[in-house]
Amino acid sequence: MSGSGPVVALDGFGVEGGFDVLAEGARRAAADGISIRVFGPPDPLRTLLDGIPGVELVETSDWIANEDDPVPAVRSRPEASVVRAVRDVAEGRAGAVTSLGSTGATMAAATFGLKRIKGVKRPALAAQVPLPGRTVLFLDVGANVEVRALHLVQFACLGASFMSAVRGVESPEVGLLSVGEEKGKGRPEDVEAHERLEGLAGSSDAGGLPPFRFIGNVEGNDIPDASADVVVTDGFTGNAVLKAMEGAVRRVTGAIRDAARSSPVAAAGGLLLKPALGGLRDDLHPDTTGGALMLGLRYVAVVGHGGSGPDGVANAVRLAAASVEADAPGRTAELLHRFGLDRREDRSSGDAGPSTGGT
Amino acid sequence: MSGSGPVVALDGFGVEGGFDVLAEGARRAAADGISIRVFGPPDPLRTLLDGIPGVELVETSDWIANEDDPVPAVRSRPEASVVRAVRDVAEGRAGAVTSLGSTGATMAAATFGLKRIKGVKRPALAAQVPLPGRTVLFLDVGANVEVRALHLVQFACLGASFMSAVRGVESPEVGLLSVGEEKGKGRPEDVEAHERLEGLAGSSDAGGLPPFRFIGNVEGNDIPDASADVVVTDGFTGNAVLKAMEGAVRRVTGAIRDAARSSPVAAAGGLLLKPALGGLRDDLHPDTTGGALMLGLRYVAVVGHGGSGPDGVANAVRLAAASVEADAPGRTAELLHRFGLDRREDRSSGDAGPSTGGT
Repeated sequence: MSGSGPVVALDGFGVEGGFDVLAEGARRAAADGISIRVFGPPDPLRTLLDGIPGVELVETSDWIANEDDPVPAVRSRPEASVVRAVRDVAEGRAGAVTSLGSTGATMAAATFGLKRIKGVKRPALAAQVPLPGRTVLFLDVGANVEVRALHLVQFACLGASFMSAVRGVESPEVGLLSVGEEKGKGRPEDVEAHERLEGLAGSSDAGGLPPFRFIGNVEGNDIPDASADVVVTDGFTGNAVLKAMEGAVRRVTGAIRDAARSSPVAAAGGLLLKPALGGLRDDLHPDTTGGALMLGLRYVAVVGHGGSGPDGVANAVRLAAASVEADAPGRTAELLHRFGLDRREDRSSGDAGPSTGGT
Repeated sequence: MSGSGPVVALDGFGVEGGFDVLAEGARRAAADGISIRVFGPPDPLRTLLDGIPGVELVETSDWIANEDDPVPAVRSRPEASVVRAVRDVAEGRAGAVTSLGSTGATMAAATFGLKRIKGVKRPALAAQVPLPGRTVLFLDVGANVEVRALHLVQFACLGASFMSAVRGVESPEVGLLSVGEEKGKGRPEDVEAHERLEGLAGSSDAGGLPPFRFIGNVEGNDIPDASADVVVTDGFTGNAVLKAMEGAVRRVTGAIRDAARSSPVAAAGGLLLKPALGGLRDDLHPDTTGGALMLGLRYVAVVGHGGSGPDGVANAVRLAAASVEADAPGRTAELLHRFGLDRREDRSSGDAGPSTGGT
């Protein structure tokens, strides 16, 4: 089934462009030496994937749609493609899972089906926000609607480990989202997390680069301004901020497109400007980064954008493969251990009791 | 001092463009029949404001800068311009206050210096987000970092009353920001607020339009998509979302400007496209709407953008005057009374205890 390269379990459903796009994406990723196990229906995938080296079809015809309630769907439908893909990882046949389908279903399937890294209280959903010159990893964007200080501190470690292991960012800059730069700003859990992150940032090995640098509180605009490599917050705020930013960008670029269609003169202007805007389009395109990530589990789960083209599918698979090759979960476990954050007991105090979330 | 028109107390400090811009803005607003009491330094305002009908200078040379910690500054500096402007309102010489200076200082001065509308637990800071075809009022964007369900319900009433009284939106559509459209999504306080808002929306007078329509949960993208007239959330999330949206818009428009400067051909394209983009620029410009609002007090406080030009200053003053003419606080009190939300006791249950916030 696989050579010496990483093996990725790929959910064959969920690509809005259809199975052709999924298959072409798998072909492109496989050309890089990634082995892919695709979980999907024999018709039409048997034909579409036939003869692509390194790609294997595992037949299943059930799948969980965006409209389904993720938690009950994952629990009750063991043959659903994303559930089977996750099981493939849990049982050792693949090293990471990728889905272009429902984010909620992928999160639920991964959370139920994969073990957490030792000491991790809450896995988090991390979005890569591609910006000119720097990709910002923003978490949590929807796994935990309520958090405690310890969770925020762990999110910082999850994000920093990923950025350093998989994206090669040395000593990533980590910011804590708040309503002002000053240390005392924010909710009690933010103030406590700030304190604890400051403490950790001082505990770097003498000589070498610290595993990450805590740059303190950042504000909403620091995400589009790319002021940090990793920005940490709770999943309610993160989800709202991410969707609002994406919506604002869509709105502005849409208005520009409309303007360019409003008259022949404006259309000519749009055409002349287009080459110079190419980089921006690439930076903002959902295909570019490969998708969001479920972090904190012993295997990485990648959730690509349903609207991805073949390159988006391929990049989502490549991202999963890169997380296997870099052993992102192992690096995360090391960092948590080094900071004493892998112990069973929660040393956090003062903030509210735990609460479950999930979008 | 005034004729029959509304009187606005205007903080004379804080405009980044300087006193010339402030004075020119006051002149433009006064031309609409608004009486303005400007709190600022005799030099240069005495000369700049001299002879403008309806504009009076009240001399004060102390002011609170963005860098000052708002709460202690407001408490300890009774002669600061924004504190005096607020006192002018509290003592009945003006009907509303406008500042282009520190948002925090204006919020603190208004909160300490002006009484709350009966029953209002927490005044809120509301941002007007100007979008093509509709301005979305978004609150709270920074006054309360933690809220309970009752506060969110009251924010809906504050926002709806303002939009209907001052901006003439009949039966405004109100959405509750959450992480999914379904009723059960969000934190406990969001779920409870959803329930209570649904109950209120059913209590409209037979025949007439309801005071607002609760359209249920909305998500981050529904703000730039202008899916509601009023969007309600806590001040931590609101602050982060607003700043992230503004930052994203700045980033995209900045990239377009850079692209248009990158080559003569691109520059020509930018010029040809410019007229068609004029509307977008106006929609996004901070001068357009007149600023953010402190709602829930017996008098409206308007916080304009420090980067405003003369029109921005004039629009901020006009907005304050419009709130006086429409009796926005009175309309809010009526709505709260009608819904039984003006009682002393908090009928809310189940969520966490009160906590103070403030950015």
